[in-house]
Amino acid sequence: MPSRSPAASTRATLRPLGLDGTRITGGFWASRQERNAAAAIPRGQDQLEEAGNLLNLRLAAGIGQGEAIGPVFADSDVYKWLEAVAWEYGRNPSDDLLRRQRELTAVVAAAQREDGYLDSVVQLRDGDEGRYQQLVWSHEHYCAGHLIQAAVAQVRCTGDTALLDVAVKLADHLVRTFGDGDDQIRDVDGHPVIEMALVELYRETGTAAYLELARWFVETRGHGIIAEHGHEPTYFSDRLPVREATTVEGHAVRAVYLGAGATDVAVETGDAELLAALEGQFAHMWATKTYVTGGLGSRWDGEAFGDEFELPPDRAYAETCAAIGGIQWAYRLLLATGNPSYADAIERMLYNGFLAGVSLSGDEYFYVNTLHLREHAHADNNRSPAHGRRGWFSCACCPPNIMRTLASLDAYLATTTGEGVQLHQYADSTITTDAVELRVETDYPWDGAIRVTVVRTPSTPWSLSLRIPAWAENATVDNKPVDAGSYASVTQTWSPGDTVDLHLPLDPRTVTPSPRDDAARACAALERGPLVYAFEQIDQSTPLDDAHLPNAPIDAAHDPALLDGITTLTTDTLKAIPYYAWANREIGTMRVWLPRE
Amino acid sequence: MPSRSPAASTRATLRPLGLDGTRITGGFWASRQERNAAAAIPRGQDQLEEAGNLLNLRLAAGIGQGEAIGPVFADSDVYKWLEAVAWEYGRNPSDDLLRRQRELTAVVAAAQREDGYLDSVVQLRDGDEGRYQQLVWSHEHYCAGHLIQAAVAQVRCTGDTALLDVAVKLADHLVRTFGDGDDQIRDVDGHPVIEMALVELYRETGTAAYLELARWFVETRGHGIIAEHGHEPTYFSDRLPVREATTVEGHAVRAVYLGAGATDVAVETGDAELLAALEGQFAHMWATKTYVTGGLGSRWDGEAFGDEFELPPDRAYAETCAAIGGIQWAYRLLLATGNPSYADAIERMLYNGFLAGVSLSGDEYFYVNTLHLREHAHADNNRSPAHGRRGWFSCACCPPNIMRTLASLDAYLATTTGEGVQLHQYADSTITTDAVELRVETDYPWDGAIRVTVVRTPSTPWSLSLRIPAWAENATVDNKPVDAGSYASVTQTWSPGDTVDLHLPLDPRTVTPSPRDDAARACAALERGPLVYAFEQIDQSTPLDDAHLPNAPIDAAHDPALLDGITTLTTDTLKAIPYYAWANREIGTMRVWLPRE
Repeated sequence: MPSRSPAASTRATLRPLGLDGTRITGGFWASRQERNAAAAIPRGQDQLEEAGNLLNLRLAAGIGQGEAIGPVFADSDVYKWLEAVAWEYGRNPSDDLLRRQRELTAVVAAAQREDGYLDSVVQLRDGDEGRYQQLVWSHEHYCAGHLIQAAVAQVRCTGDTALLDVAVKLADHLVRTFGDGDDQIRDVDGHPVIEMALVELYRETGTAAYLELARWFVETRGHGIIAEHGHEPTYFSDRLPVREATTVEGHAVRAVYLGAGATDVAVETGDAELLAALEGQFAHMWATKTYVTGGLGSRWDGEAFGDEFELPPDRAYAETCAAIGGIQWAYRLLLATGNPSYADAIERMLYNGFLAGVSLSGDEYFYVNTLHLREHAHADNNRSPAHGRRGWFSCACCPPNIMRTLASLDAYLATTTGEGVQLHQYADSTITTDAVELRVETDYPWDGAIRVTVVRTPSTPWSLSLRIPAWAENATVDNKPVDAGSYASVTQTWSPGDTVDLHLPLDPRTVTPSPRDDAARACAALERGPLVYAFEQIDQSTPLDDAHLPNAPIDAAHDPALLDGITTLTTDTLKAIPYYAWANREIGTMRVWLPRE
Repeated sequence: MPSRSPAASTRATLRPLGLDGTRITGGFWASRQERNAAAAIPRGQDQLEEAGNLLNLRLAAGIGQGEAIGPVFADSDVYKWLEAVAWEYGRNPSDDLLRRQRELTAVVAAAQREDGYLDSVVQLRDGDEGRYQQLVWSHEHYCAGHLIQAAVAQVRCTGDTALLDVAVKLADHLVRTFGDGDDQIRDVDGHPVIEMALVELYRETGTAAYLELARWFVETRGHGIIAEHGHEPTYFSDRLPVREATTVEGHAVRAVYLGAGATDVAVETGDAELLAALEGQFAHMWATKTYVTGGLGSRWDGEAFGDEFELPPDRAYAETCAAIGGIQWAYRLLLATGNPSYADAIERMLYNGFLAGVSLSGDEYFYVNTLHLREHAHADNNRSPAHGRRGWFSCACCPPNIMRTLASLDAYLATTTGEGVQLHQYADSTITTDAVELRVETDYPWDGAIRVTVVRTPSTPWSLSLRIPAWAENATVDNKPVDAGSYASVTQTWSPGDTVDLHLPLDPRTVTPSPRDDAARACAALERGPLVYAFEQIDQSTPLDDAHLPNAPIDAAHDPALLDGITTLTTDTLKAIPYYAWANREIGTMRVWLPRE
């Protein structure tokens, strides 16, 4: 039975433990999950009501009369919110969550057409004749994909099958409707996500047709199918077949969702060639098209990846959803390969490019995560970071995407194999497999000391593997040096009460850009542990846009009163805070990269 | 009577001489004008036919049946082409040009509605009820403005009044329709240009109502009128009243067309406060939002100006039309103030940001003028410079805009005042006023020697003023040092055959960016005379994206066989060509800014 986890593969190299096996119990992420549950999720439902997303589904269900409101992908925001509710229920069951979920699930089920089709906006605006008429823009599969993901989360975390029934009916409809058959439609959605969703539904139900359809969507893409509709294919990740692409391009969220789904397909079909291609694409993206924050996508125009090393800090798009998709892709590659660099990538995206997308209060959001906001920046776009974080957006993809990510974050901590347990991300937590129970205690990311205590163990030897981040030079396990950028394994016969002490040195680091990263030339940024730092004008005594980073020692000091408790870095007269925490006091000049003196 | 010139003001500080008083006779620009006449203008008519712009007007004229094709502003491309034909006829009358012009003018006249309204796309798509329903997007005034500009050029250069009759009828309709009256529409076009056009029609006809309507459009903008339609106002230069703005923002072409039109209004109404505001806006644009090439607009998203010092070379939009609008604005400020910095700005835009927009063959175009094309750049947009120049665009604003600019370029050379004659731009040319005739001989911009010979002169003393560009340190007039960034004047009694020798030193210059120009930090660019240089991969022996500009002497050498004859700059192993000439051999890596060693 699949675990209470996203990407619950049984064929991957590493086996996910899911929410039943990993549990964040305190510390940095726990407080964010609490706010997600207490503030973001309830407010999210109100926002979905206000914006009309819920109204659309009620109208499609025959409750009331009116016209569809909002963008074509409006349903997807509801499904992402439902998914968040399911994962949150898996962490902390509550009657309130169950009630909200069941009420909304009933509306979704009622909105579904008899033959399994479901897309409230198309149903209301175009009727049955409007189905799949312009799949390149309509997001019909995109909405279906998010529904399926929510359904899988729901059954895994609550046992409720109501949404799963809808998802299966919808997936069966898709299986009948799309393919190479004479009476089938040969087309793909302009916005991937259905691929990941169908593979996960296959994992949940065992229905091979879902995996086959996911495979067909992945393989059909990139053969001119979108260009036939008169669109330039790059934006839609349709310029090349997935297995021939050597980089990511076009709309960043689409590209990384496709990468994640194709990785799922490669794993479940045992397609080593496809997996190798995807590893190459991710590596090229990480080396040439990723901001130091893990932000993905440097072009506002088309919300897109740019050319190699086109990484302007001031015009970074770095959509919060792209970081989330990047985390999902890296997680699937980590499970598939066991390569610690993917866990490093998850860490960088999670603590920086992703986390900056949500306010300390938990319920205000950045759509765009810039690395430089100038003096006199003009907020000439709804999504401009110069507005500060906002409670919602007319295109509201990011907020519920953040909610579902925070609610399912526990699942990213650890995996298991026949050899033992692997810890990938560090937090106060309990890790439980069939035979082993571990307690992890740490004040990470503020402190680099991580203690793992064995609570329960079989009498036979097994390996405890600890990720040593690539940045962690001079790390030790039980005071013995270990290699950065690897898993340090302790293999022995364990007894309850045994401890392992990992120490990750958190000396502040000055990082410099690639020589080809033109827009950050002659600059440096500060990092400490997994955190990238930023300078805000409010902390400086002179104009930040004229400041230079001195060649001087950097001091780290923890300030429990500042920004919910952060470690600041100071050098000469300049003071930096973790990037994720910026724009929580005022909106002013902010820089990640500073010119070197 | 207004001269055969754009912006034929009689109230400005400097009086334009127009095509009747200035004539380029040979050299750098003459060969470009020849290709414009021989290749671009005829091919342009074919393109307008193919793309449907001419069909739209014929359909609106009742010739044939069908639906409007193309963007809402399709008519404007026809009018810009008609304007180019008129100016070209003013330079070189030909039966062919006259025939083309008269045939097309007849179609335009037949397409006009009885009451003066004219917009073929609105007429065909929405009928009379569709007029001015969404002026923020419909470009109805924009098309009217270009028609009026074409009509004024036509009557000035051919004497034909056929298009002027259409323009007057249309302008009278606008005067009746727009204003603060109870039965009038209080709205402005989302895309300025009508302001410039109405002032010019006022200059041509003396009808004060046209100037008043232009003034009303300028003054009505920026008071929330566009925001009322639900649009963010910045894009449309509508966030602030023109006289309160301190910079340019939003869509670059819109912003500079508005600046030019508002300058016309300020001059003709004697509004010193408005003129001062416009001078401040231009100065702020030039200091903080202009590329070294004179390119304007750094954002693909919204084709817009960015924040201060947001000038990424790789993502420069620098639309060719924005450089043209910038030249028009600077020219009007030059006439209004006599300040040589505006003639310097015209020179920089003309030789670089504008001229790169057209191929050496004269009939292929860049829409977007980047300052850096990377290795492996992907051409994922119709307008991407990675495609190289193209014969036409679905949004074809730039090609006919280039045509009309080249055909009317003579007018930018010189002006007159009561004191004498001012030379602003240098070319082989004849300059004629009522009393004076001059011959200018030069191989500029390749050679800095410029000889002015007096051909005809009154017997009373007058001043010959020569612009000394700000870059021209150590310039001399008749071997006597003169100040860079000023007009050097020779005041005397002249005799036919008298000569004045201006020498502008053309030593190669290494220029560095502003310390706040983050994207060009630690880089330098090369210039010589008015030309900004670029490095193309084809001229280098190592990868350009890894190259550094050495601290070494720069040699200039003229190569008459290369790219129609250019002066190259070489330093160490690197070779540079004038920026305007790039992408005429192959499309490969190109850089204007190079990291300094």
